[in-house]
Amino acid sequence: MIIVMERNALPEHLQVVKERLQDKGFKVHLSQGVERTIIGAIGDKTPALMELFETMPGVEKVVPIMQPFKMASREFQMEPSIIKVGNTEIGSGQVQIIAGPCAVESRENFLEIAKLVKEAGATMLRGGAFKPRTSPYSFQGLEKEGLEILAEARALTGLPVVTEIMDTRLIEMVAGFADILQVGARNMQNFFLLRELGKVNKPVLLKRGASATIEEWIMAAEYIISSGNNQVIMCERGIRTFENYTRNTLDLSAVPLIKQLTHLPVMVDPSHGTGKWKLVEPMAMAAVAAGCDAIMVEVHQNPSEALSDGPQSLTPERFEKMVSKIRTIASSRG
Amino acid sequence: MIIVMERNALPEHLQVVKERLQDKGFKVHLSQGVERTIIGAIGDKTPALMELFETMPGVEKVVPIMQPFKMASREFQMEPSIIKVGNTEIGSGQVQIIAGPCAVESRENFLEIAKLVKEAGATMLRGGAFKPRTSPYSFQGLEKEGLEILAEARALTGLPVVTEIMDTRLIEMVAGFADILQVGARNMQNFFLLRELGKVNKPVLLKRGASATIEEWIMAAEYIISSGNNQVIMCERGIRTFENYTRNTLDLSAVPLIKQLTHLPVMVDPSHGTGKWKLVEPMAMAAVAAGCDAIMVEVHQNPSEALSDGPQSLTPERFEKMVSKIRTIASSRG
Amino acid sequence: MIIVMERNALPEHLQVVKERLQDKGFKVHLSQGVERTIIGAIGDKTPALMELFETMPGVEKVVPIMQPFKMASREFQMEPSIIKVGNTEIGSGQVQIIAGPCAVESRENFLEIAKLVKEAGATMLRGGAFKPRTSPYSFQGLEKEGLEILAEARALTGLPVVTEIMDTRLIEMVAGFADILQVGARNMQNFFLLRELGKVNKPVLLKRGASATIEEWIMAAEYIISSGNNQVIMCERGIRTFENYTRNTLDLSAVPLIKQLTHLPVMVDPSHGTGKWKLVEPMAMAAVAAGCDAIMVEVHQNPSEALSDGPQSLTPERFEKMVSKIRTIASSRG
Amino acid sequence: MIIVMERNALPEHLQVVKERLQDKGFKVHLSQGVERTIIGAIGDKTPALMELFETMPGVEKVVPIMQPFKMASREFQMEPSIIKVGNTEIGSGQVQIIAGPCAVESRENFLEIAKLVKEAGATMLRGGAFKPRTSPYSFQGLEKEGLEILAEARALTGLPVVTEIMDTRLIEMVAGFADILQVGARNMQNFFLLRELGKVNKPVLLKRGASATIEEWIMAAEYIISSGNNQVIMCERGIRTFENYTRNTLDLSAVPLIKQLTHLPVMVDPSHGTGKWKLVEPMAMAAVAAGCDAIMVEVHQNPSEALSDGPQSLTPERFEKMVSKIRTIASSRG
Repeated sequence: MIIVMERNALPEHLQVVKERLQDKGFKVHLSQGVERTIIGAIGDKTPALMELFETMPGVEKVVPIMQPFKMASREFQMEPSIIKVGNTEIGSGQVQIIAGPCAVESRENFLEIAKLVKEAGATMLRGGAFKPRTSPYSFQGLEKEGLEILAEARALTGLPVVTEIMDTRLIEMVAGFADILQVGARNMQNFFLLRELGKVNKPVLLKRGASATIEEWIMAAEYIISSGNNQVIMCERGIRTFENYTRNTLDLSAVPLIKQLTHLPVMVDPSHGTGKWKLVEPMAMAAVAAGCDAIMVEVHQNPSEALSDGPQSLTPERFEKMVSKIRTIASSRG
Repeated sequence: MIIVMERNALPEHLQVVKERLQDKGFKVHLSQGVERTIIGAIGDKTPALMELFETMPGVEKVVPIMQPFKMASREFQMEPSIIKVGNTEIGSGQVQIIAGPCAVESRENFLEIAKLVKEAGATMLRGGAFKPRTSPYSFQGLEKEGLEILAEARALTGLPVVTEIMDTRLIEMVAGFADILQVGARNMQNFFLLRELGKVNKPVLLKRGASATIEEWIMAAEYIISSGNNQVIMCERGIRTFENYTRNTLDLSAVPLIKQLTHLPVMVDPSHGTGKWKLVEPMAMAAVAAGCDAIMVEVHQNPSEALSDGPQSLTPERFEKMVSKIRTIASSRG
Repeated sequence: MIIVMERNALPEHLQVVKERLQDKGFKVHLSQGVERTIIGAIGDKTPALMELFETMPGVEKVVPIMQPFKMASREFQMEPSIIKVGNTEIGSGQVQIIAGPCAVESRENFLEIAKLVKEAGATMLRGGAFKPRTSPYSFQGLEKEGLEILAEARALTGLPVVTEIMDTRLIEMVAGFADILQVGARNMQNFFLLRELGKVNKPVLLKRGASATIEEWIMAAEYIISSGNNQVIMCERGIRTFENYTRNTLDLSAVPLIKQLTHLPVMVDPSHGTGKWKLVEPMAMAAVAAGCDAIMVEVHQNPSEALSDGPQSLTPERFEKMVSKIRTIASSRG
Repeated sequence: MIIVMERNALPEHLQVVKERLQDKGFKVHLSQGVERTIIGAIGDKTPALMELFETMPGVEKVVPIMQPFKMASREFQMEPSIIKVGNTEIGSGQVQIIAGPCAVESRENFLEIAKLVKEAGATMLRGGAFKPRTSPYSFQGLEKEGLEILAEARALTGLPVVTEIMDTRLIEMVAGFADILQVGARNMQNFFLLRELGKVNKPVLLKRGASATIEEWIMAAEYIISSGNNQVIMCERGIRTFENYTRNTLDLSAVPLIKQLTHLPVMVDPSHGTGKWKLVEPMAMAAVAAGCDAIMVEVHQNPSEALSDGPQSLTPERFEKMVSKIRTIASSRG
C-alpha cells in the first residue's frame, strides 16, 4: 500500500508510521517531496491493515495497491474456469440458456413450461421455490413442494435446474434437489450463507447485489471459494441507479470486466436487469455480444397470470425468437 | 390502483381488464378521455396484483395508490411507538446515545471503553461479536466470546447493549445476551432473518440497506411487525451514491420522512454514514436537529489499533465533546 | 393526470380541487373508494400544472398519465427519423462509425489519424476543438484553429465531421465548420444552448447527461425540436453510478428504450461510457447487438501522448479490429 | 503521483516510464516489491498528466496524491473567506437566510412576498427571472422584466437579491440588477459561463450539480477563482440518487467537508434538496447544526398557485416559524 503523509506532518509522525509498518512486516520505501512524504509499503497484507494506518497522526490517505481478492483472480488462475452442470458446461464457449418462470407456481404449470422452454432451446431450467419478496404480503414460494416439482421437471426434460437458496438452514434441503444453487442479489453479502455454500459440492450462481461494486461482488465469490467451493458462476442482473424507466440498470461492462479480473464464468439476467419484457431480447443479444457465457431469462405461459415478475417475463413464442437471435449473435461474436 | 390503457388499446382489451378487476374484487371506475382510457380500481389488495395487470394487452401502466406498508404506517397507529430498553426509552423525546467500538476486540478493551463512554454520556453500549466483512480475510468477530464480554459490560455499567445478528441459526444465542438485536444494512432484505426476529420478544434495530429506498426499508420493518414483533427501531446509516469523499451519503431527510410515514423511532449512525471521524460530530448534531431519537457512534480508545472501522471512530475525548454538543442541540430543537 | 386525495381529505377540499381542474379545462371523473377518492383529470396539459394540484389541501399525490414529450415521441411520428449527413445517413439501418481523437491536438496529428481511421472503416470523423475539462488547468482545446483543422480533414477524407459546441456565442462559428454539432453531457440541460441549436439547420448530436433520466434526455431533444430543428441524434455515453472500475456505467438499455419511445436515431459512445480501452470493443459490439444506429469511439495514434482521454482511446490497429467485429455483429443482428 | 506497475511489467517498460517522468520534470522514487514495482513521482503537475502515464505499457494504475484544486483550498488560504453582500456578510458566523419564490411571477406578487419574508426574518431575497425548466412547454421566467422587479424589491426592502444566470450573453444584463449571481445545478460545469463569471466583480453562488462529486464542485469554483473572482459561495442543493420519496438527496456532509477542504462559505437549499415543504424545516435545522453559513428557501404566498416548485415552497407563516427555529439552533451550535 501507499501511505501519503499530510503536508504538515511532523517528523515524529513519519517515524511512528514507519516503525508500525515494519512491525507489521512491511518493507518501507520513502519518497520525500517538496510538499509531502509518500511511503511505499511493500508486503502482502489484508485490507483491514490499511484502515489502521489511515487513522495514524500525520497520515492523509492510504492507497491500496493489491486487489483484495486472490483465489478468484486471473493472477491466481490464468485459464478460465469451466463449471460442469449435468451434461452441460458453463464457461467453455457455448452460450447456455437458462429459462423458466420466476416462481414455481404449480406442478402442472411448471412441467408444461419446462417442456416448452426446452423445445425452444433452453439448456437449463430455472424456477424459484423460495422467493425473496419486498412485501411480506406477497407470494413467498411453494417451498419444499416447489423443490419436488423442480426435480420432477428435471427428470422429465433432462435439463439441470437452478433455484434460489435464502437461508443457511435450508442448504441441505435445497442442495438435495437443485443442480445449481442461486444466491440472490439481496443475499450477495449474507456472509454466513456464502461460507456455508463454500462447503457444498454444487455450483453456486452468485447474483450481483443491486448496489454492489464489481470488487465487492468478486469478494463475495472469494468467500465461497476460500471456504472450499470453486464452482462459482457470476450473474449480472442490474444495479440500482436513478433511472426509473427500467427496474435496474443492466451493467453489461461487468461481463468483460469479470472476465479480465477473474477466471470465473459470467451469466446475464436481462429479465431482472430491465424489468420489461420488451427490453429482454435486445439486452440478451447485447449481453452475448459482450461475451457472456450464459443468459438467464424468465418465461411464463401467461405473464398476466404470473404470481411474480409478470411484466418482465417472455411468452414461450417470444423466448423461442430470442433464442434464435442470440444463437446467431453467439456464432458471430468470434 | 389506477390502470392507464394504451392510446390504441382495443375495446376488447378494455373489457378483459375490467372483468379481471371485478373477478379480483375491485370496484371499477372508467374515465374515458380523448386519447386514453383510465381505470380507477378501488380495493385493498396486495402489490403483487398490480404486476398482473401491467402485463395485460392494451395496458400502458399501472399506478399504485395505496402505500404497500400497513402495520408500520402512521395511518395504522397515530401515536409514535416508544421502545423500552432496560430503564431507558427510545422514541419518548430524550435523545439516546449508543456508543462503543465497531467490534468487541478483547475483554479488557471492551470493559474499559464501556466505562469511558458511560462516563462521557452514553446511554447504551454497542459492539459487534459477529462482524459482516467485505473480505473473508478480515477479522470476523469474537463470536460467542464477544457476546459474553458484552453481557459483562452491561453488568458493570448498567447500560443496555446492542449487537448484530447475522444468521437465523444464531438468534437464540444472541438474544440470550443482547438487549437490542441489530440487523445490519447488508441483511435488511434477509427475509428469513426478519421473519424469525418477528418471533422474538426483543427490540430490533433495523439498519437501512445501502441502496434501499425508504419504502423498501419500511417494508422490511413490516416483515418484522407482521410476524409479531412491533419493537422496531429504524436506523439511517447512509446510502450508496457516486460521492466518494464519504464512505456513504448520510440521508438525513430519512429522519423526518420515517416520522411522517410511520410510528417507529429513528436512530442515526453518523460513523458508518460518513466513514470519517471528522464528520461524525457535525453530522450527529445535524441528525439531532432533524429530529432523530437516538445517535449511534463508534468510539475506540485507540482508533489506529482498531480491528475494524478505525477511520470513523471517535476517541473517548472527542466523543465526550460531541455528547455535550448534541445535548445542547437537543434541548434547543423544540 | 390522476389526483389521489388523502385518506382524511374533507369534502370541501375535494370540491375545490374539482373546480380548479374544471377551470383549467380538464374533464373530471371521480372514483370514490372506501378509504380514498381518486380523481381522473382528462386533458392535454403541460407538466407544470401537475405541481399546482400537488400543493392543494387534501391532495396526497398527483400521477402523470401523458408522457411530457410530444414532438420527439413515437406517437407524434411513427416512422423512424433518418438524419442525412453528407452522403451518409444515421438511422437508416447501416451502423455509422464515428472515430477520431478526443481533442484536435495539432494539424499534422489530426490529418494523419483522420486518414488512418478512414482506412480502418470509419464513416465520420470526431475531434474536439473546444474541450470541457473538469480542471481549469487542463488543455482546453485549440478553439478556432481546431475547427479549421477539422475542415481540412473533411476535405482530405471526404468524411463528415462532428465537434462539440459549448457556448451560444460560438454557434455560428462552429456551425460554419462542422457537419454535426455535438452537445456534451454537461450541457444536456443548457437550455439556452438547446434553444439556439433549434434554430440551426444542422444535425445535433445530443449526449445524455451523466445523471439524466431517459425522460429528461428526451425532453432536452424536445427543446431542440420544438425550436425548429428536428435533426436530433441521441447519444448514450454512460451514466454516473457508484461503480468505480469504470468511468461511467454505459446504459445500453437506453438503445431499445429510445427506439421504443421516440423516432430519433441512437448512437453509443463506449469510450466515455467505460473510460477503459479494454472495454471499448466488447461494449461497442454489445451496443450494435442492442440495435444502435452508430458508434462513436476515440482513436489516437499514441494514447500515451494524448492531451486528453488517453486511457480510453484505441490505437488505429485495435480500432480496425473492432470495426470488423461490429460489422459482423451488425449483419447478424437481423 | 504514484504509478503502480503491472505484476508482469518488463524492465524496459519500467525504464520508459521512469524516463518519461523525468522528462516531465518529476523526481522519481522506486519501491521494488516482491510482486510489483511502485513509482513515487514527486512534482506539482496538472491532473491531465496522470492520464498519460495510465496508458503506458506495463502500467497498472496511477494514483493521484495532490488535490486537483489549489486556489479554493484551505492549504492555499487558511482563514475562511467572508463574502460581503450589501450590508451583510456570508461566512462570518451569522446564518444568512435567503428567501423568496422560485420564480418572479409578477411585480405585485413579488413585492408583497419580499416584504413578508423580510418581516419574517429573511436577510436576502431570491427569485428567478430566467428559469431552467426540464420542459420547453413550462414557464421560462419573466426575463428582463423579472430583473427589474427584483431591483425594485431590493429598493423597497433594502435586502440584497440573488438571481440565476444561465447564459454568457446575459451576464452584463443580470449583473446590472443582481447582488449575487447564481449558477444553477445544471450549469455547474458550463465552463464558459464559469470563466466569464470569473471576470465579474460580484459574488457568485455556485450550486452543486445533481451528480457532481465534491471534488468536481470545488473544481468548478476553481474555474471562477482562477479567472479572477474569489467571491464564491458554495450551495448544496441535493444530489441525485435512487431514492424517490424526495426530489433529491440533500447531502449535508458536504457542509463540513467544504469547510475542511476549502476556505469558501457554504449555503444549503433544503427546498430543492428535498422537493417537499414538509421536509424543509427539519432539514434547514439540520443544515444549520451541521455548520452552514446560509440557508436558501422558497417561500410563496400561495404555493398552489406558484408557476414553479409549488410543492417545495413554504407559506410565509411556516417560513417565519422556521426562521425562529433555525435562529435557536444557530445560537446553540457553538
